[in-house]
Amino acid sequence: MAEVEKLYVTYNEVHKLCQESAARILADINPQLMIAIGGGGYVPARILRSFLRQTGRPNIPIQAIGLSLYESLPETTNNATPGVPEVPGTRVTRTQWLDMSALGGMENIVGKRVLIVDEVDDTRTTLEYAVKELEKDVEAARQRLGSNEKTEFSIFVLHNKDKQKKGFLPKEMIDSGRYIAARTLGDAWINYPWEAVDIDEHDRLAAEAASRNAK
Amino acid sequence: MAEVEKLYVTYNEVHKLCQESAARILADINPQLMIAIGGGGYVPARILRSFLRQTGRPNIPIQAIGLSLYESLPETTNNATPGVPEVPGTRVTRTQWLDMSALGGMENIVGKRVLIVDEVDDTRTTLEYAVKELEKDVEAARQRLGSNEKTEFSIFVLHNKDKQKKGFLPKEMIDSGRYIAARTLGDAWINYPWEAVDIDEHDRLAAEAASRNAK
Repeated sequence: MAEVEKLYVTYNEVHKLCQESAARILADINPQLMIAIGGGGYVPARILRSFLRQTGRPNIPIQAIGLSLYESLPETTNNATPGVPEVPGTRVTRTQWLDMSALGGMENIVGKRVLIVDEVDDTRTTLEYAVKELEKDVEAARQRLGSNEKTEFSIFVLHNKDKQKKGFLPKEMIDSGRYIAARTLGDAWINYPWEAVDIDEHDRLAAEAASRNAK
Repeated sequence: MAEVEKLYVTYNEVHKLCQESAARILADINPQLMIAIGGGGYVPARILRSFLRQTGRPNIPIQAIGLSLYESLPETTNNATPGVPEVPGTRVTRTQWLDMSALGGMENIVGKRVLIVDEVDDTRTTLEYAVKELEKDVEAARQRLGSNEKTEFSIFVLHNKDKQKKGFLPKEMIDSGRYIAARTLGDAWINYPWEAVDIDEHDRLAAEAASRNAK
């Protein structure tokens, strides 16, 4: 990993990435529900909600789901130190799923435009899992309803790593512009601010990198 | 409202409030599960998780619940503009509740130490609702199990407003130090960074206030 570029993203950069993507998300997707993949999707989803809010309309509801990627050998990948990004794994485990009881049940997602939010698209394993499992649940609800309505899932991530993916998303989603990454970059090691032990040092490293890149 | 102090909280301040509270939370509460009240609890819960992580242990799972406070006249309080804090109301509405299916069912909360996280304790209405409803669900699960184990709910908020509260928390929770506010302040108008339209301006206003207060 020694050769991999380390990227330090500040909170204000995360805020601005959400802000600049909001116009495109409203125009191209106009979501009626957000699903935040926790923990990484919590911060961008909350920020995005502020920018997606439209005059005279209530906030877009956020549902949180919890997904974790584990390595085959979990014992060896227990990076207990904040500041050390978690090693991406291969097996997805749920810690929380949708609870639509307060929003009219799963039937109420049928026919809606749903935006899935996460911080990073690394191997794409988690996103593939989320889309497939959500589509399965929605399809079951659609059949219960006997409805013909199509549910449109879209994705927003702060960063997409341009690398060989292990997971796959529906071609139609990507072709129709329903996959939005605020930034696409190489296989960098991304340090998000909510993982920083020392946020001032984190910001200093981000500023240093910015001034190096400006030269 | 003209006389109410306006407080601008930066992301890095939120980060540091979580960081400095983490030691106390680990020592006094040592939570096994976090419940983030969305949307305001999402950001502090995610940050806190980094600082609560202990060597050799997995992350503490976060469950998100969605609660909104509405005014009696929802039509008039639709602040559609980011940057304008939402007006606190009196009626709590659920948009998401726990989904413990992946964590062994509600029965698996019985006997656990659970930390409820939100950004602000204003009228206390939302927190009272959360604690009461969670206790109700846990009590039902305890009875199903025929268990005698006690579930310990605690609360962490970034800011507690020292004002007449409309909601109440169990006396025993407060007396035993299971209510933690990183800061207690007067009835200020708190602007959190995730609501800011212009985050640079927000930071500038925060810095101005800090330099005024330092004089």
